[in-house]
Amino acid sequence: MPEPVAKSDLFIGVDLGGTKILAGVFDRQLNLLGSYKISTKPQRGVDGVIERIARCVRDAVDECDLELSQVKGIGIGAPGSVDTETGTVLFAPNLGWRDVGVARELTKDLKVPVHLENDCTVSMQGVYEVELQSGPKNVLGIFIGTGIGGGLIIDGKMYHGFTGCAGEIGHMVLDFNGPKCGCGNRGCFEAFASRTALFNRIRTAVKEGQSTLLTEMLGKDLEDLRSGDLRKAIRRGDKFIAKVVEEAARYTGAAVANLVNILGPEMVVLGGGVMEALSESMLDVVIKTARERAMPGALKGVDIRASRLADEAGITGAAVLARSRVKGEKAG
Amino acid sequence: MPEPVAKSDLFIGVDLGGTKILAGVFDRQLNLLGSYKISTKPQRGVDGVIERIARCVRDAVDECDLELSQVKGIGIGAPGSVDTETGTVLFAPNLGWRDVGVARELTKDLKVPVHLENDCTVSMQGVYEVELQSGPKNVLGIFIGTGIGGGLIIDGKMYHGFTGCAGEIGHMVLDFNGPKCGCGNRGCFEAFASRTALFNRIRTAVKEGQSTLLTEMLGKDLEDLRSGDLRKAIRRGDKFIAKVVEEAARYTGAAVANLVNILGPEMVVLGGGVMEALSESMLDVVIKTARERAMPGALKGVDIRASRLADEAGITGAAVLARSRVKGEKAG
Repeated sequence: MPEPVAKSDLFIGVDLGGTKILAGVFDRQLNLLGSYKISTKPQRGVDGVIERIARCVRDAVDECDLELSQVKGIGIGAPGSVDTETGTVLFAPNLGWRDVGVARELTKDLKVPVHLENDCTVSMQGVYEVELQSGPKNVLGIFIGTGIGGGLIIDGKMYHGFTGCAGEIGHMVLDFNGPKCGCGNRGCFEAFASRTALFNRIRTAVKEGQSTLLTEMLGKDLEDLRSGDLRKAIRRGDKFIAKVVEEAARYTGAAVANLVNILGPEMVVLGGGVMEALSESMLDVVIKTARERAMPGALKGVDIRASRLADEAGITGAAVLARSRVKGEKAG
Repeated sequence: MPEPVAKSDLFIGVDLGGTKILAGVFDRQLNLLGSYKISTKPQRGVDGVIERIARCVRDAVDECDLELSQVKGIGIGAPGSVDTETGTVLFAPNLGWRDVGVARELTKDLKVPVHLENDCTVSMQGVYEVELQSGPKNVLGIFIGTGIGGGLIIDGKMYHGFTGCAGEIGHMVLDFNGPKCGCGNRGCFEAFASRTALFNRIRTAVKEGQSTLLTEMLGKDLEDLRSGDLRKAIRRGDKFIAKVVEEAARYTGAAVANLVNILGPEMVVLGGGVMEALSESMLDVVIKTARERAMPGALKGVDIRASRLADEAGITGAAVLARSRVKGEKAG
C-alpha cells in the first residue's frame, strides 16, 4: 500500500469509452490509489453519460475512503476529436456526440477543474511519462480497444501534426479493396483488429453455424461478450477463436511494419483493452509478422512490447493531464 | 540567363538512379546552370558505375563551359540506405550494391569533396529548401520513380527517426494479401504505383494480347519504354494506358490518405519521374481519392501538390547537401 496521501493532492483520471467509463484516483506521484468502472450507456444521451461520468468519479473517490474536496484536478480522455482549450468533444462517433462541452458541465457539477484530451493522446502520455519515465525519444503507441488509435512521441514530445489529428493509425488502409469503413476509407486496420472487428467476425461465424466454446460460456447470442472471454476460450482449446485472434495479430504486425518503415521509432508500445486481454496470444505473432514485413534493418534495435499499464494507460494519462494543468504546464 | 558566376562557387548535385545518372551544376544561390544525363548500366558492376558517375559530372561541367576546378563540392543522392559519415552505400538493391564507398572513390578521382545521402532525403531537402523556401513546418514528400520513397519534414527539420530509415513509405502495405515484394512484405505501395509496377503491368497485358498505342510507338517488346511514352499514349487517346495510370493514382491517393491520417502534415508534395511525366493524369485522381479516404477533417487546410522541381528535386537537394557541407553545416 502507498503511504497515506496529503489531503489535497489527488488527481483523477477518467477514461471515457464507448462501452465503459473508468475513473482512477491518483496521488501526486501518480500512484493509483483506487479505481471504479461503470458502463457508459451512450443510448441514454449526452446528459445521461455526463451524469454517469460524475457518478463514476464520486464512486472512485468514495472507494478509496477519500473526499472529492481533496481532488485538485480531473482529466478525461475521450474517444474522438476534442478541443482541449474549451474542453469540448467535437466529434465522437462511438458516443454519438458532436460539440459536447463536457469539461464545463462536469466542472460545474463536481466543483473541480476538468480537462479534456483525445483518449489515445492521453494513453500515450500516460505510457510515456509513467511507464517509460520519458526515457526513449521516439515512441509509437498503438492502442487496440473498441477502435484503434495511436500516439506519437517525437523528440521526447507528443506529436500532434499540423492538423492536430496526427496518429489516426486505425484508419490506415491495409486492404485497398477491403470492406468500407465508417470513416469513408476501405479496409482500415481498425476493421481487422479492433474489438468491434473481432466480435463481428465471431458473431457472424456463429450465425453461420461455427461452433465455439463461447456459446457454451455465454449463450447462443453472445451477449455481453468481452475480450477476456476470448482469452478464456483460447486457454480452453478453442481453435476457432485462436485463429480469429491470430489473424487480428497478423494484421497488427503488418500495421507495425508499415509504421516502423514510415516513422523509424525507437520503441513500439501496444496497449488498450484487447492487448491487455489477449497479449499472450497476440504479441509474439505481432512481432513475428512485423519482422517478416518491415524493411530489412528497419526493426534493428527497435523494442516492440505490450504496455504494462494495459487498460490503465488511459486513466494514468488523464491524471498526467490533470496534474500538468494544475502545475500550469500543458501536457505534451 | 543567370548572371555569370564567381569562378569557384559551383556545386554539383548528382541523382544516382537504377536507370540513369543525372548531374546538375549549380551556383551558390542554387540556380541550375546546366545538367547532363547518362544511363547507369548497373550490370557493368561497381567500378563501371562509379566511372560513369565521374564521367557524367565532368560532362555536366563541360556542358556549362566551366571547369571542375571551380567546383567546391559534389553531393550524391543514392537509391538505398547510406552511411553519410563515411559516404558509403550500405544497401542499394536497384544497383545491386552492398557496402560501396562511393564518396571516397569519387573524391580521389575528381579531386573535389563528395558527400552522400539517401536519394529521397536529398529530394525532400531540395524541394523544402529551394522550392518551398523552408516555409511550411510539417511537409511530407512522396517521390515516385523506379521505386517509391518519402521524406518527412517535422518542425522544419528533416526527420530521420531512431533507425535513420524513416520515410520508407514505398513499403507501406496497401493490400495485406497482395503480391510479394522484394522487401519481404506483401502488397506494398511501390508494387502498385512505381514506374516498375506500371511497366510490368503494361508489358504483361501486352503479352496477353492487350492492344495499346505504345506497341505502335515502340514495337511489340516495348523496349526502351519511358514514363513520358505513357503520357503521349494517353494524350493520343489510349484508354488502356489511361486506366493503368488512373489505378496507380488511386493507390497513390490511398497512400496519401494513410500518411495524412498518421502524420497530419501541412503539405504533401508529390515528385519523382513518374509524377513529372504523368501529373496531368494523376494529380486530380490522387487528390480526389485522398479526400474520399482520409479521416473527416484530416485534409482540412492541407495542401497537396506536385513539385515544380519534378525530376530536378534530386540534383537540387544533392547540391543543397554539397553546399551545406562546405559551410560546415549538416543538411537536415
